Amino acid sequence: MDNERLKKQIDFLKEIDKIKQIFRQTLLIDGTRHENDAEHSWHLAMMAMVLSEYAKEKVDVSHVIKMVLVHDIVEIDAGDTFVYDEKGYEDKSEREKKAAERIFNILPKDQADEIRALWDEFEERKTPDAKFASALDRMQPIIHNYYTKGHSWREHGVKSHQVLERNKIVSEIAPELWKFINDILEDSINKGYIER
Amino acid sequence: MDNERLKKQIDFLKEIDKIKQIFRQTLLIDGTRHENDAEHSWHLAMMAMVLSEYAKEKVDVSHVIKMVLVHDIVEIDAGDTFVYDEKGYEDKSEREKKAAERIFNILPKDQADEIRALWDEFEERKTPDAKFASALDRMQPIIHNYYTKGHSWREHGVKSHQVLERNKIVSEIAPELWKFINDILEDSINKGYIER
Repeated sequence: MDNERLKKQIDFLKEIDKIKQIFRQTLLIDGTRHENDAEHSWHLAMMAMVLSEYAKEKVDVSHVIKMVLVHDIVEIDAGDTFVYDEKGYEDKSEREKKAAERIFNILPKDQADEIRALWDEFEERKTPDAKFASALDRMQPIIHNYYTKGHSWREHGVKSHQVLERNKIVSEIAPELWKFINDILEDSINKGYIER
Repeated sequence: MDNERLKKQIDFLKEIDKIKQIFRQTLLIDGTRHENDAEHSWHLAMMAMVLSEYAKEKVDVSHVIKMVLVHDIVEIDAGDTFVYDEKGYEDKSEREKKAAERIFNILPKDQADEIRALWDEFEERKTPDAKFASALDRMQPIIHNYYTKGHSWREHGVKSHQVLERNKIVSEIAPELWKFINDILEDSINKGYIER
């Protein structure tokens, strides 16, 4: 290929295909298998399109979508860290920064910087857009767990109070979605999917 | 749930999880298994972010992204129709319209209309954004076929001239990407992945 810029772009698009093989703790809603990061990212983008009206601070939906599309690419190198895995969280940030450095820089510099900025914004969780993206990222596995009878909660012995504690940021970001999370957790306790 | 609107939105987000089980003819680039529609849609969104500079007519990247995110949801009911399957194409449009009617209308009316409009725009392929989205949708499986030694071309006896004929619209929409497609097809012929 005589176009060096396009070659880098295609190399990046080829590399990120690997995200389709990074499997998460969460099952698909039909319960047949674990979900991977590409599917999860697509689903978050759809959630951003459909649920943005619940963000307490006004968000730019398109920007939220871009952030959720790229937020897990680093897991190609760093792997998926289960949200209740305290040990895994110790060096998560370091592992992911190294991954961002390698993977985003396959792109031409201007685009590497653009995607890195999206990822940094998501990770820092300071802007209304990043906060809302993060709330969706917390909410999606809770919905999947609810519809799969608490599969990964039961597998890892996660309790309802831990889910609430770990995800309480949602209460500030999107109060109505936080109420929904509380409702399905209460229902999950009643149905025996999770212990209080 | 006492919020009827949110209930509909969650029902929709639950329903579209099924797209993760709609498998395409194309393999992942590592060749281990077929790709599904959620992964494909995520990959197209990333292509839109990275390759929009090659669109001959200026495009709104965020709008292209939204279109590719929703473009295959109808396949939950209508199934994936292989691009070289002439018989399958006969009633494709009818099957997909019926699916759009059912699935998008799980949402509250305003959002059902919004997503239906995105899907209609993609299908009609008249706006610059829709044309570019369509070009990416054509290009992605060609790249995957190239990196998997022509897997689905060989499986279905597809010839290089058919690929060029079926995808020649890309030449008008993004000439540089069309050149790239021609280059990798030529290389595929040389490497024995596809017959001329």
